[in-house]
Parts: sequence; C-alpha cells; structure tokens
Amino acid sequence: MKNDLLQVGVVGTGMIGALHARNISRATPGAAVAAVMDIDEARAQAVAADCGARAYTDALALIADPAVDAVLIASPDAFHAEQTIACIDAGKPVLCEKPMATTVADGERVLRAELATGRRLVQIGFMRVYDRKHADLFDIVTRGDIGKALSFRGQHINPWRESSTIEGAIVNSLIHDIHSARWLMDSEISQVFVQWTPSEPDQPRSARYAIVQLAFADGAIGALEWNGDSGYGYEIVVEITGETGTARTVSHTSPVLRQGGRVSQGVTPDWPQRFAQAYQDEVQIWVDAIRESEPTGPSAWDGYMSLVVADACIRSVESGLPATPVGIERPDMY
Amino acid sequence: MKNDLLQVGVVGTGMIGALHARNISRATPGAAVAAVMDIDEARAQAVAADCGARAYTDALALIADPAVDAVLIASPDAFHAEQTIACIDAGKPVLCEKPMATTVADGERVLRAELATGRRLVQIGFMRVYDRKHADLFDIVTRGDIGKALSFRGQHINPWRESSTIEGAIVNSLIHDIHSARWLMDSEISQVFVQWTPSEPDQPRSARYAIVQLAFADGAIGALEWNGDSGYGYEIVVEITGETGTARTVSHTSPVLRQGGRVSQGVTPDWPQRFAQAYQDEVQIWVDAIRESEPTGPSAWDGYMSLVVADACIRSVESGLPATPVGIERPDMY
Amino acid sequence: MKNDLLQVGVVGTGMIGALHARNISRATPGAAVAAVMDIDEARAQAVAADCGARAYTDALALIADPAVDAVLIASPDAFHAEQTIACIDAGKPVLCEKPMATTVADGERVLRAELATGRRLVQIGFMRVYDRKHADLFDIVTRGDIGKALSFRGQHINPWRESSTIEGAIVNSLIHDIHSARWLMDSEISQVFVQWTPSEPDQPRSARYAIVQLAFADGAIGALEWNGDSGYGYEIVVEITGETGTARTVSHTSPVLRQGGRVSQGVTPDWPQRFAQAYQDEVQIWVDAIRESEPTGPSAWDGYMSLVVADACIRSVESGLPATPVGIERPDMY
Amino acid sequence: MKNDLLQVGVVGTGMIGALHARNISRATPGAAVAAVMDIDEARAQAVAADCGARAYTDALALIADPAVDAVLIASPDAFHAEQTIACIDAGKPVLCEKPMATTVADGERVLRAELATGRRLVQIGFMRVYDRKHADLFDIVTRGDIGKALSFRGQHINPWRESSTIEGAIVNSLIHDIHSARWLMDSEISQVFVQWTPSEPDQPRSARYAIVQLAFADGAIGALEWNGDSGYGYEIVVEITGETGTARTVSHTSPVLRQGGRVSQGVTPDWPQRFAQAYQDEVQIWVDAIRESEPTGPSAWDGYMSLVVADACIRSVESGLPATPVGIERPDMY
Repeated sequence: MKNDLLQVGVVGTGMIGALHARNISRATPGAAVAAVMDIDEARAQAVAADCGARAYTDALALIADPAVDAVLIASPDAFHAEQTIACIDAGKPVLCEKPMATTVADGERVLRAELATGRRLVQIGFMRVYDRKHADLFDIVTRGDIGKALSFRGQHINPWRESSTIEGAIVNSLIHDIHSARWLMDSEISQVFVQWTPSEPDQPRSARYAIVQLAFADGAIGALEWNGDSGYGYEIVVEITGETGTARTVSHTSPVLRQGGRVSQGVTPDWPQRFAQAYQDEVQIWVDAIRESEPTGPSAWDGYMSLVVADACIRSVESGLPATPVGIERPDMY
Repeated sequence: MKNDLLQVGVVGTGMIGALHARNISRATPGAAVAAVMDIDEARAQAVAADCGARAYTDALALIADPAVDAVLIASPDAFHAEQTIACIDAGKPVLCEKPMATTVADGERVLRAELATGRRLVQIGFMRVYDRKHADLFDIVTRGDIGKALSFRGQHINPWRESSTIEGAIVNSLIHDIHSARWLMDSEISQVFVQWTPSEPDQPRSARYAIVQLAFADGAIGALEWNGDSGYGYEIVVEITGETGTARTVSHTSPVLRQGGRVSQGVTPDWPQRFAQAYQDEVQIWVDAIRESEPTGPSAWDGYMSLVVADACIRSVESGLPATPVGIERPDMY
Repeated sequence: MKNDLLQVGVVGTGMIGALHARNISRATPGAAVAAVMDIDEARAQAVAADCGARAYTDALALIADPAVDAVLIASPDAFHAEQTIACIDAGKPVLCEKPMATTVADGERVLRAELATGRRLVQIGFMRVYDRKHADLFDIVTRGDIGKALSFRGQHINPWRESSTIEGAIVNSLIHDIHSARWLMDSEISQVFVQWTPSEPDQPRSARYAIVQLAFADGAIGALEWNGDSGYGYEIVVEITGETGTARTVSHTSPVLRQGGRVSQGVTPDWPQRFAQAYQDEVQIWVDAIRESEPTGPSAWDGYMSLVVADACIRSVESGLPATPVGIERPDMY
Repeated sequence: MKNDLLQVGVVGTGMIGALHARNISRATPGAAVAAVMDIDEARAQAVAADCGARAYTDALALIADPAVDAVLIASPDAFHAEQTIACIDAGKPVLCEKPMATTVADGERVLRAELATGRRLVQIGFMRVYDRKHADLFDIVTRGDIGKALSFRGQHINPWRESSTIEGAIVNSLIHDIHSARWLMDSEISQVFVQWTPSEPDQPRSARYAIVQLAFADGAIGALEWNGDSGYGYEIVVEITGETGTARTVSHTSPVLRQGGRVSQGVTPDWPQRFAQAYQDEVQIWVDAIRESEPTGPSAWDGYMSLVVADACIRSVESGLPATPVGIERPDMY
C-alpha cells in the first residue's frame, strides 16, 4: 500500500500549487511529488527542495518527464488549456485547477482532445465536491429528503476587495458556484441574468457585489450572490429548496463567544482555511482513483459547461438582459 | 387616558378583520370598536356582539356613521380603493389592509384623493414595520452599522399550497416584500425581473416558487424569494449586505429540542402567529398617532409605489424580460 | 369591558414599582392605578401624576384606602411580609414581588395568614412563568415530549458586578431560578449543595459565580449557575433533560450581524429588556384573574417553598456540605 | 520522508484498536503497522491481513518483537497498566488508551515506571486535545480572551443505554471529561461531588444521568454532566466562563433542514463519527513526535491524575458527600 507511489508533477508553484505540492508530499499516502515547474526558477527550486522533487521551468518538459505519472496544473489560467492538452497527448492523468480554459472555444478543444482518447484523463479542480458541508447537502438532496429541487441559492463571499472586473469575477470566482449549481441540482443551466454593483463608481465594469439569476433545464430556478469585499471574512453558503423542505449548509463551527454585549463566532478568514481539508481530500481521492483506474471527480465536461455558462453570464453583462448558455451536446462519454 | 376612546369602524370581518376588531376591543388602550361591517350579516353581528359594536352590511353606511372616528379596512382587495376614498372624502383616518388597490390607476386615484385634502389620512397595512425583528434590522441599517446598503434579500415562505397565479402571488403576497425592500433600503425599485416555477405543470401561470431580482434607484441590487408551499411552515427572512457587513433577521426563537437524531426548533406555523404582536402594535400606534395628530405609518405613497412595482413584475412575467416600474413623481407631501 | 376598571395600589415606586405602575396605567386594559406609595414623597408624587393616581407615603394607608381594589407590592424586601399580610387582612388581592419574605419564618406567617382566609389572595412576582420562552419549554415538558424529566439546568447571568454576598445572591436573585426549577420540574427540591467563587478575594462571602447542585423529591437532579458579572449582558437559560430528549430555551433573537471577522447577535443588556413583555403579561393576567375570581399565578406556597430552599442553600454555604430544605407539609389549599 | 516508517504494534483489535490500526496503515504518513495482537486469533489475523502486519495472541510477545518500534494499547482496561509497564521496560514509546489503569495504585506503578527511565515514553489516549473544537476553545482560554477562567461545564452525552454502574461511568467515560477539565482549566481538581439517577430503579448504583460538581485548586468551580442514554445522539459540550466572557464549543455542523414544522440539524450518532479526525490526528502527531524525539500528548501524569479524581468521585458516590482527590506530588518531570 505504501509502495508504488504515484509520481505527480505539479505545474505552477504559486499559492495553490505550493499547497497541492505540500499536501501530496506530506499528507497523501500513495503519492509523491516527482517534479515541480514554475517560470520563477527560485520558487520552483524552493518547492522542489521541500518535496524532494526535481525543478523545471518548462511545463512541457515536466509533462514529458517519464518519471512523472500524473500532472497537477496550477499555473495561471491562460495556460490551463494548452497544458491540459499536452497531458492528454502524453496519456497522463491531469488534475487542472479551474477554470479549465479561459474561453469556450479552448474549453471545447480540451474536451475534444480527451474525447479522442476514449477515456477519462482530465479532472477539474472543483474541490467543493470534496467538502464535507457540500457533500452532506448533496446527500440530502440526492436521497430525496426534500423532494424534487425547485430552487438553488449560492452565496460566495470574499473577504477582501478583489480588484476585479465583473467578467473576471465570473470566470475566476463565480465559476465555482456555477459548477456547484449544476452538480447539486443535477441539471444544466438554461438561462442566466447578471446584475452587479461596481466597486469603483467611475468604472462600471468593476465588481463589488453581483447576483446571477438562474434557470435550469429541468424547470428549477435560482440565484448566485457574489460579494467581492464582505467586510467580515470568507463564507460559502448553499441553500436548496425542494418540494417538501429546504436544506442549507452551515458556515460557522468555531466556539461561541459571549462578550461585550454580543454572542459571536469567528468567521473563516479566507478560502485556504475554509477548504483546507477539501483540497487534501481532492488530491487523495484523485491519487487513489488513478492508481485504481481513472479519475472520478469533476470532468472535462464539467469544466466545459461551466465555461459555457460563464460565457452566457458575460453576454448578460453586456446586454443587460437574460442570456442562454450555448454549448455542444453532451458526449456519451460523460 | 382611558377616556375619550377613539371609536373605530372595521370594514370586513374575515380572518384579518376579526383579528383587528379583537385587538382593538381587548388589547388597545385608547380605542374601542364602534361598528363592524360585513356583507355576511351573521358574521358581522357575531363580531359586533363580541366587541360591543354596531353591525353594518354596507361599508359606506359604516364610514358615514358619525359615531365612527376612524376606519380600518379589511375587505376583499377589490373594494380597498373605493372604500379608502370614501374615508378620505369623509375626512376620517383610515388604515387600509394591503394592497391599497388592485391596479396602479386605482392606486393613483387614492393617492390624489388624499393629496387633495392636504393632509395624511391614509395608512396602509404593511405591518412588518411594527415587527420587532424587522425594526431591529432597520435600526442596524439606519444607524449605518453595515455602511451603505448594497443588496437586499427577502424570503417569503408560506406553509400551504396557495392555489395562486404568479400575478396573484405578486399583488397579494410579494407586495409585502416589495414594501420591505423599499422601506429597509430607503430607495425606490428601478428594475425587476421575475422567474417562477408553476405549481401545476399544465398551468404555466400557476405559482409554486418565484424569484424577483431587483435593482434600486441608488445602485443597490437584490432578490425576493417567494415559496407558496414550503413543506415546513411560515418564515420571513430579510438579509441586507452593506459595505462593511451583512445583517439578517432571525426566524426561530422556540426552544431547542434534541431528540431522535436531530436538534431542532419549531417553525412558526403561519402569519397570524408570526405577526400577532406586530398587528397589535400596528393598531396601537395608529390609534395613538391619530389621537395625537395624524398617522405615521406606511403611507398612501407606499401603497401606490408597491402597486407600481407589482405592475412592473407582472410585465416582466409577461415578457420574460426585466421591466421598469413606471409611476408618477413623488409628491412633496410624502 | 373597558368599564369597571380594577383599581390597583402600587407600593414602592423604585425601578420595578414604577415599571408596574406604567404597565397598569398604559398597557393593561381592565385596570387603572388608583394610588401609589413611596417613603420618598417626591418620587411617589411623580409616579402618581404620571398615572393619574393618589400618592401615599404610608403603605398601610394605601392598603386601607377603599378606592384600592388590589395591591401590587414592590417595596424593599424587608417590608414584603408585613405588607402582604396587611393586604390579606384587608381581604384585598395582592401581587407581591419576590421574595415573599426574607426569612422562612416570615414566609410561613404570610402563608398561614392566607390559609386562615380559606382563599387565594396572594400572588408572588415570579414573572418568568409569563415569559414566552419559559412557557414554551413548560409546554414541551408538560406534554411529555421529552419523557420524564431527569435533570434541570438553569443559568442566571447578570451583566454587572453585583456587589453581593453569596447569601444576597441566593435570596434576591437565585430565588427566581429556585422557583423555575420547582415549577418546570413539577417537583420539590430535596437537597442543595452550593459552591461559589468570591468577587473580592479577601471577602470569602462575596459572590462572583455560583453553582447550586440540586436533587428533587422525584429523583431528578440538576444544577443552577449564577454569574454576578458576566462581561457580556443578561441571559437566562433553562435546559431540561428527559428520558427521550433534551429541551433548552433560546436566548438570542436579535439580527445576525456579520462584521469584522465575527458573526454575532446582540445580547439583551439587562432584565428589564429581557422580561418587559413578561412583566406586562403578568399584570394583565393577574388583573383578568382577579376580575374573574382569584389569582392563578405563583402562590404563597411557591413564595414559601422558594424561601425554604434558599434557606437550605445558605446552610450549605455555611457548612460546605449538601443541605436539605425543611418546610411544613403542603397545605391542601395549594 | 516516506522512508524509515515507524513500525507500530497494536495491542487489542476491538473497535478502537481496529480503528487505530486502519488509521496507521492507511492515513498516517511516516508509520506502518508491523504487528497486531488479540486473544481472539481470528480477529487478530483479519486485522493483520488488512494492514500487512504480523498477528500475535500474546501482548508481551508483540511488545518484545524487535520489528516493533512503538506500541498502541487498545486492550481491555484491566490490561492497560501491565502492558504499558512492559513497553516502558522495553524502552518503547507507548500510546495507551484511557484509562491508564483501573486503580490509583496501578496508575502510580505506571507513573513510577516511567519516572525511573527519566524520559517520556507514555502517552494516554485523551484524544479530545486533538479535536479542532476543543483546540479552538483551548486557544481562546489560553490567549486570555475571556480573562481568568471561573467555571467549567462539560456535557458528555451518549446515545445508547450504557448498562453501566455509576462507578463504570466514572472510570470509563467521565474520565475523558475529568481530563478535559484539568487540561482546559489548567488547574488540578480539588473537590468533587457526585449525584446521579439510576437507569434501573431497583439498582441504585446503575447510572442513567450524573452530575459531578467540581472545585479547582485555583478557586474555579464547575460541573460535569453525563447522560448514558440521551435519546438523540452523541454530543460533547464544553463551556468555560471567564472574568470577561464565556466560550462554548459548537456541536452541530450538518446542514440545516427545514421540514415538517421543524428547522433541524442532524446530530452525530456516536463517538467514532464525532472524533474520527481527532483519532487520526492523535496518531499522526504521536508518530511525528516519536520520530522527532518523544511524545508530546497527554502524559502518564495526566493518566494518573484522572484516576485520582475518578477515585474521589467514587468515594463521593459512596458517602453522598463531597470528596477530595488524593494523589502524590507532581514529579518535576511533568
């Protein structure tokens, strides 16, 4: 069980890449970090030293390295599609951070590349499916405890002023919520309508707060709320209303403090704390699945469809009207 | 203090009218019920007997009765406008249940009738402003505790399958939330977009669940959720996100019961239980204000503007697109 | 209904007496304040003016006044017993603030005075029985929702450093919890054991925090916690464990505020806010019951038995050992 | 990092032993299971096969096995002391499940055996110190957020009718709470007073519900509540009141479900679910500490002192009076 480690190559050693590398090397039985890559050579070498791995500054070289069994891509978004396709071409399983690409067209290229191989090699880093709070909600809905789902509500609350355009907020941040909605409602999104308030009054496309109203293919509806600067911390809420009841995730689990006229709990400061365990479990389950056969987590189809919905959101931003996601038919493989 | 009672006439002795009559006669120092009216004579007489009041079957006769100082209208919606105007014409203060009218045009007639008198005679039965949970939230927002308000969220959850059209849900039920949003955000609503799921699959205009996305004149946004058949009870939630924090009403205050694998609280069964105290306080404050000078609660302008927004919602229902509320300019009197 | 007001005399116009006088004169249909008494003549006259009542500086004169139908005693504890007995002797219903007396012997004198009349005239101001949160818990326990009660836990949390001895804390403050325990468990207390921490290290009998362990006659057990200076506000918690579940009151019902790294609710600052409605309902129900027949609230027996238990607590303080309450047999009248 | 695994021998393969063996073999980087022992040979062989380990039926043989670097003892309580001493004698680090022994005298023998070696070899399985909820509370108290701790309250709630004597409940179950109290209050317990209700009315020493009142050496007080058959699930609560505030662990983190008139959360069914992560972290940290130098978790002194307090509890049971724990002086080594 502790032999025959899966040798993983990590592309990108920024915050999230370094987190993954550490998780794999220290807390993931069955895997080791064989190589890491970063265009910042010093940073690549520091992480490599920490993991006992080889350092690269060229992603394609790392992917080609025969000592690398599988690849985790945590590079800037703009490189995701080409690097994922390189992994597919090399026949190596790849866990690519979200978004899978930055355009629908590039997303479709990744999808078709995998389709051409006839087997699943790609997993997308929608780690919320490995979060206990989300998984418990999924179980409630899937068991039918609340009947057919009628409405989805997601809140995605960030702690700091993300100097983001509304388009950036959609593709980088709300894309998590788009996947949550598709996954938990078990239905594709058929219409979106985006409203937002700017963070900079003189820059209408800057984003402070946004609401994305949703319609689903099966008739359900919903809304995503996104806060770029909450003033209080990080929080992810999902609430699903079904025919016989409503279920909602619980956010705050720290001790209750009574002091100075208030009864309070601490809020998770940011996503690394909130999803620490989910990131670890995501990688562990990915490693176990590859060693067993092939990835079981969010697929290239999920990566593609979330780009399709994000694209519709951007069209709604531009038109001020509801917009319809337009993508290819779901291939049989997914 | 206990002399010189304000003599109130109650028009309509259905559920809500009977509730008001009982509150006035038994729990409102400073007021008495002088007369009640219902087209169902037996029902009128029963309530009259209970209150020590005179029974009418003609609303205009009750309004004209010189023994009646002020009128509370709880008749079917279709009669609200004409009866309110009759009170204005008689120079008598009137508390009219929501909606103030069933069309924007009729609402404008009421508004202009009051304007012609040059003083406030009309109050509309948006009793949530007298609810402690709402008032506490209002105080937080008004004190600036969470900075400028960026987003409003309202949930209006009903316990039983209201066999309602989406139009009926808007004019009769969501109109409460429309007023809440205007009141708590201190801004008029500038755009609405309505989506809903039907309660009867073959009747597309039947309403099971609805979301109304909102934009406000001051740049804030929001969403109203309406559930016609929650499967669990009655609940009203308001959540307001501001620049420095978020505030949300608390729904459940009954004892926490740990039993059979669950930790739970009872949910308020329906609106009479949820707003019992608010209805009582609404009438008490109305009586006190009239005895002092004139009504201070939700005005004819509030009644009119909520109709204007409801009308835009119905246009959004018909077009499937966002719609803009269109009303007259706010008169100086309000 | 609004005629034939019950004319109440209020003895003592300190904080609690003035509160009762205001409640009776402004918010209690069916009653009026006929007279108030205070040894501080100016204070008596101020409250009398506010209520349209006559002012006395002699309690016995007020009690003897034929214009006074019933008496509410809110004088210093040391006068409770003699004034209550004076009311009994005058055949007038009396609502006496807790404690009913300051010694078991004086409590027994009150009890025997009422017994001698053969009817209930006395009610003791244990207003928690009129508090909605307590009443809901009582209903859960009484309906048998949690089976036979096995354990009682009470928390009595004060917001300010009460410069109190442990004996004072027991007789003035914990006596509320003693009555709660007897009432909600429907069983007399058969043993107590008191531990406490001093508020002043050099004064061992000063009280900062106390725990009173309880045994009940029916075999149940429990504990009371008392905090003299919580640092955060006022809170009363009752938790009862039964054979099939546990029920607990909910304390905090103000809006949830997310801000500055915390999610919080405001705590009730002190008892006047926490029990405002209970004080009002206590007086309303007392008035209604007297006008109908006789008081139905906490009885002289309840007043007596809480003194008996408090006396045992003081003996436990002195001995450092468990102590047994010793009182007379429960007369048939109660 | 993944070489030089610490080879662990697991004594006892019942529920908790099998759990530890699985955690070590599958989820503990840095360790492997070299051997397992059970007097039930089939059970030992099944667990051994699962872990790739050698099976023993003789604990001393396992302890003597040179392939075993460190020992985890999860045998019946009666064997804990002698097996722990055998490990000490063999110079092997040992993680012994609670209680460390079944008598104070045996506990002292273990303590003196370790003292004789001059270094820490023993850790006791008080896994709550590795539980996130407890650790967060510890941090709050230790940082001084609530000032000096005045009172400790623990609730230990079991889901099933534990057919236990009160003595058994103390030594097997409440011993966890005794350690929690000592650890979180950072003070030894100086007095205890035990009350309980029997689970079988005709067996006075059977235990259904118990309260243990506590005094601490530093002047603080407290109470432990123990429920042998809650009727609703498993729950551990700790609440500490300090000079400037009160902190309390949060129990329920599963989704909030609104359904059928109730708003509820699922309760953890039993301890394996509640402390799954704590058991895993306990072993991981133990392994890491041994590989680094020596154990850092709950010590033989903690094991001994909890037995001393448990012994005082049993004396209180027998006398019906408060009792004082009597143990040796704290050796310098701890």
